[in-house]
Amino acid sequence: MLGDCIENVRQTVPLVHNITNYVTVNDVANVILACGGSPIMSDEPEDVEDITSICGGLNINIGTLNKRSIEGMYRAGAKANELSHVTLLDPVGAGASALRTTTAVGLMDKIEFTVIRGNISEIKTLASGSGTTKGVDADVADAVTEETLNNAVAFAKALSAKTHAIIAITGAIDLVADAERCFVIRNGRPEMGKITGTGCQLSGMMTAFVTANPDAKLEAAAAAVCTMGFAGEIGWSRMQEGEGNSTYRNRIIDAIYNMDGKTLDAGARYEIR
Amino acid sequence: MLGDCIENVRQTVPLVHNITNYVTVNDVANVILACGGSPIMSDEPEDVEDITSICGGLNINIGTLNKRSIEGMYRAGAKANELSHVTLLDPVGAGASALRTTTAVGLMDKIEFTVIRGNISEIKTLASGSGTTKGVDADVADAVTEETLNNAVAFAKALSAKTHAIIAITGAIDLVADAERCFVIRNGRPEMGKITGTGCQLSGMMTAFVTANPDAKLEAAAAAVCTMGFAGEIGWSRMQEGEGNSTYRNRIIDAIYNMDGKTLDAGARYEIR
Amino acid sequence: MLGDCIENVRQTVPLVHNITNYVTVNDVANVILACGGSPIMSDEPEDVEDITSICGGLNINIGTLNKRSIEGMYRAGAKANELSHVTLLDPVGAGASALRTTTAVGLMDKIEFTVIRGNISEIKTLASGSGTTKGVDADVADAVTEETLNNAVAFAKALSAKTHAIIAITGAIDLVADAERCFVIRNGRPEMGKITGTGCQLSGMMTAFVTANPDAKLEAAAAAVCTMGFAGEIGWSRMQEGEGNSTYRNRIIDAIYNMDGKTLDAGARYEIR
Repeated sequence: MLGDCIENVRQTVPLVHNITNYVTVNDVANVILACGGSPIMSDEPEDVEDITSICGGLNINIGTLNKRSIEGMYRAGAKANELSHVTLLDPVGAGASALRTTTAVGLMDKIEFTVIRGNISEIKTLASGSGTTKGVDADVADAVTEETLNNAVAFAKALSAKTHAIIAITGAIDLVADAERCFVIRNGRPEMGKITGTGCQLSGMMTAFVTANPDAKLEAAAAAVCTMGFAGEIGWSRMQEGEGNSTYRNRIIDAIYNMDGKTLDAGARYEIR
Repeated sequence: MLGDCIENVRQTVPLVHNITNYVTVNDVANVILACGGSPIMSDEPEDVEDITSICGGLNINIGTLNKRSIEGMYRAGAKANELSHVTLLDPVGAGASALRTTTAVGLMDKIEFTVIRGNISEIKTLASGSGTTKGVDADVADAVTEETLNNAVAFAKALSAKTHAIIAITGAIDLVADAERCFVIRNGRPEMGKITGTGCQLSGMMTAFVTANPDAKLEAAAAAVCTMGFAGEIGWSRMQEGEGNSTYRNRIIDAIYNMDGKTLDAGARYEIR
Repeated sequence: MLGDCIENVRQTVPLVHNITNYVTVNDVANVILACGGSPIMSDEPEDVEDITSICGGLNINIGTLNKRSIEGMYRAGAKANELSHVTLLDPVGAGASALRTTTAVGLMDKIEFTVIRGNISEIKTLASGSGTTKGVDADVADAVTEETLNNAVAFAKALSAKTHAIIAITGAIDLVADAERCFVIRNGRPEMGKITGTGCQLSGMMTAFVTANPDAKLEAAAAAVCTMGFAGEIGWSRMQEGEGNSTYRNRIIDAIYNMDGKTLDAGARYEIR
């Protein structure tokens, strides 16, 4: 089933507008190409509305945000909503600075996101920082483990119910939830954390997947997580002696490039709760 | 003959000032180094005139443009013209947004470019969007194929005659034309389109080639296209099972690093029309 | 001894705030991860104080500086000083433009740097451009060679005495000096100069090393230089036929990823003067 999602990306070649940080932007572009999509980057406020209009999805990543690009995020998001495009928020560093938290929460207030994807710390910040007196209970542990899983699944579903966005929380165990169902995904390798930007790459790829699967958005978001994690496993299995995080980065993107639906279905490890 | 052009790059080590997008900038720098040049990046308006003054060529790429960098482009271009430096325009996304089209056309109005390099869609936008009532006929097909070749060659020559710039249109078949001669180049592989920024890389390298060959600018621009395309063929021939677009990117740059004049002359596939 | 320095990085995982150029930022992040640190990038003036507060070290690199990021550098530097964090200045292109020279000198005036790392040309610019009538004698040769070594060592020590910063001058022979001792390091390979950003990568890694070794800062800075240079040797030894600067970049970062204290101690080639 998840395999169909990547096949749909390859067949429809969704155009994804990315407002993303300059640290990992090249890898984001290559990952979107690897999975079958097509990336465009633009963050100038006077440019973003035109660019997002020709795309099918918008990926907003707040790493290395600045005053100008923040304005670009708001304008692109408003236009994408107007056009009913897929929108994804990656709240990089929410909780680490006031500007990042304020921006992420502000974007959530003004823009309807199809998906919000971050680590547990960032997502907890959004849940508790939304300023509403009846916010989602963010009293969940700081890592999603077998022990904290039930609680974390409930948290993700509740936040999805509140925000109307698919909530993707990535870590050792990944969660992708709407209000009723939560994919609990166990693909991936810990060494992926030694590569900069695997999270950013996933956000770009997830935007492509969800855009290409309008009738199965939750499955598509989960399929993107499985694709990234399984590519991490494949890439690791191909590592030669003496290789490290730089080559591993290339091997993961290469594995995504070679992934098809059948391979993904065979390698995806998840349950639905 | 084209082989001499890359040898001249390696012998003179031209310094190239790049105002280019943050998506592919690292690859642009490494490609310029690979072919024997030396890259410098600077886009701050108060910095660009000093930087361009110590260089021999200026590569302006409007991807991820912003208000500040646009001002940097105009100032750097004016200074480069004043110093009779080689100047190249890569109108990334012209036609995709009003700001990009306006910027590309505005730069063409104010700056004399030695070379303009883009895909057929971008170049057509420039040809028809220049605001003159007697613009070049941009009624050429949307892809350069064997069927549309004659028409496209005529279009490139006419645009060169009008703009006094070498026109490089890259795609499945590449064209590099001045008003009288057009190199029709058949190097390259379609898989290069699955790597972000091969066009940006080519623009950076082309600036180095033209700068290093002041008496053979058209040949130098064509040699850069052949180098990129032939490196794409060499890189592809070295691909191992399981590799994809990320490793392919590295293999192409590696092939440029190892390219010498003799190899290029043996591998370049072109005709002059 | 130097081997302990990298082990301390791996054990303490220092968080490094980088305000660095967009050309090489991805490699800087991956190198910091490879050596055992953790990178964060932020240059927006309203974001940098919060970000630097949660870090242990601050790496300021002025390549692709702009008015906004310059303000970010000053604000981050002041906050880092206030918190007694490790601070490093990489004056990329000082001497090449008035803005870069002014910014580097201005930063040195306002911020107390733990380390200043650049090539001989940049460091000479800082020494002579500091505006004091009793500046350090910058009348040192333009390259550190066996012939100019004594003079260069004296210059580095004198500049350190004046600035109270560790001075790291990298080139064919690398110098890392405080006012009394100078590490003269002979690791590395000339081919590293054909990769964009090995200097930037070193600055990021050096910030991590010095942050993780508060009681042995000079040794830590020297250890970072040895790690980079020795990784360059290891990476080169693993190069296959047909590979070039792009793959070499990956192999160097991979070698850092696999470096441990014992390996470093065996490969570091230096003397103390």
